Amino acid sequence: MAEINSIHNSRVKEWSKLLIKKYRDQAKKFIVEEEHLIQEAQKAHCVDTILCLEEKKALFENDVVITASQEVLNKLSSHVSNCTCLAICNKKENKKESNRILLLDNIQDPGNLGTILRTAVSFNFQRIILSLDCCDVYNEKCIRSTQGALFLLDIRRCDLSNEILTLKKEGYTVVATALKNSQPLQHLEATEKMAFIFGNEGQGVKKELIDLADKCCKIEMHSFESLNVAVASAIIMYEFMEK
Amino acid sequence: MAEINSIHNSRVKEWSKLLIKKYRDQAKKFIVEEEHLIQEAQKAHCVDTILCLEEKKALFENDVVITASQEVLNKLSSHVSNCTCLAICNKKENKKESNRILLLDNIQDPGNLGTILRTAVSFNFQRIILSLDCCDVYNEKCIRSTQGALFLLDIRRCDLSNEILTLKKEGYTVVATALKNSQPLQHLEATEKMAFIFGNEGQGVKKELIDLADKCCKIEMHSFESLNVAVASAIIMYEFMEK
Repeated sequence: MAEINSIHNSRVKEWSKLLIKKYRDQAKKFIVEEEHLIQEAQKAHCVDTILCLEEKKALFENDVVITASQEVLNKLSSHVSNCTCLAICNKKENKKESNRILLLDNIQDPGNLGTILRTAVSFNFQRIILSLDCCDVYNEKCIRSTQGALFLLDIRRCDLSNEILTLKKEGYTVVATALKNSQPLQHLEATEKMAFIFGNEGQGVKKELIDLADKCCKIEMHSFESLNVAVASAIIMYEFMEK
Repeated sequence: MAEINSIHNSRVKEWSKLLIKKYRDQAKKFIVEEEHLIQEAQKAHCVDTILCLEEKKALFENDVVITASQEVLNKLSSHVSNCTCLAICNKKENKKESNRILLLDNIQDPGNLGTILRTAVSFNFQRIILSLDCCDVYNEKCIRSTQGALFLLDIRRCDLSNEILTLKKEGYTVVATALKNSQPLQHLEATEKMAFIFGNEGQGVKKELIDLADKCCKIEMHSFESLNVAVASAIIMYEFMEK
C-alpha cells in the first residue's frame, strides 16, 4: 500500500493543479470528494487514484488506494474543513441515445448546474449539451450538487447554434424557455423527441438561440416573478419526461 | 448626511453582531446586501439604515442613508469581495391568509431555503411555516437566494406538530412528501386549502409529522433517484398552485 505524507510530493503537486479548470481540461482529470461520490465514481469506472486517511482505507478497493496525510488531503480539497478522502478521476465519454435532451446556455452557478444534472437523471433526460461559456461540470461544487448524477449522463460541451440545427434535422422539437412571445407550458404538446434550452441566471436564453428554436414556452406563474433556473428546468423535465 | 468611517464606531460594533443568528433573533434585525435586495426591503418598509460608499448614496432615499468607508462595509458584509452598500433591516410580521401553505421540516441549507421562498412567491404559496430546527431565513445566503421573496411572505417559526393539528382543524388537507407508503403526485386531488410538508435534505420529513398528515405523496421518477428539496417543492407548488 502506497503512502504519501508530503505536500511537496511531485504527484501531489500535479494533482493540486486539478483545482483549476484549465488544468482539468488539459489533463482530462478531476477531483471528487466525499465517500458517497467516490463510490459513484467507482461504479462508473472513472477512478484513477483514491487518497484517504489511514482509518478510511478499508472503505475502498485496495489497488487504487494511497494513504495520505491530513495535510496532503487538505491541499487537494476545495473544502475549508478537514477532508478524509478524495479520488482523482478520469473524464470519460458516456454516449447515450435519449429522446429528451437539455441544452444549457451560459449557466454560471455550479450549484445550479449540479442540481440540474441531478434532476435530469431522475427524469431520464440522459443527454446534456452545455454551451461553451457554461461553468465547468467538474467544479467541486457542481459535482457535489449532482450527488453523483454526472457519472450517469452523456454531457457534451459545444456551440449550441450548430447543435440546435443538428437536433432539428434528427427530428427533435427544440423548445426555448423565454418570457416573451412564448406559449404557456400547459399548451405545449409532447412529441417523441424533445430538446429544451435553458438560459443564464440573469439574461435567460440568448436571442440567437431563441430564433433557432421551433417553439418558445414559459411556466405560468401567479404573479410576475422569476424562477431559479434549476427550479424552472425541473418543472419542465417533470412535465415532459417520457411516460 | 451622516458618515461612519471607523470599524470601532459603537453602532458598527452593534450591527456587526447581526452576522450571527443569536443576535439577529435578539435584536429582531438583519442585514441585506446588494442594491436590488435593498430596494425590495425598502418597498416592504423594513429598512432601518442604509450604509453605502459615497458614490452609491444617490441610489437610495436620503433620510436613512449613512455614508460608510469600504472598511466598515466589509466588516458588516458576509461576502469575501468588496461590498458597496448594505441595509440594516427590521424583522416584520407579515400576516397573510393563504389557501396554499408550506411546512418546512429541518431544512438545513440556506440556499435551498431561499430558493423555496422565491418559488413560493411565484406560485402564490403565501404562508411558510418553518420548524424550530430549520436554518435561519435571515442568513445572508438565504436572503440572496430568495431574490427578495422573503419580504412578500408570511413566514413563521414554530412547532410543526401543533401547526399540523391546527391546520387540519381549519380545513387544510395536510400532505407530507415521503417515498414510502405514498401515492404518486398525479393521483393526488387538489382541495381548496392545502398544506405540504417538505423535509430535511438527508432524512426527509420526520416520521411523527408524516403520521399526523392526512396523506403522503411522492413525485414519480424514471429511476429511483432523489431530488433536491427546492426542486421537489417547486414541482409540487407548480402542480397545486391555485388556478
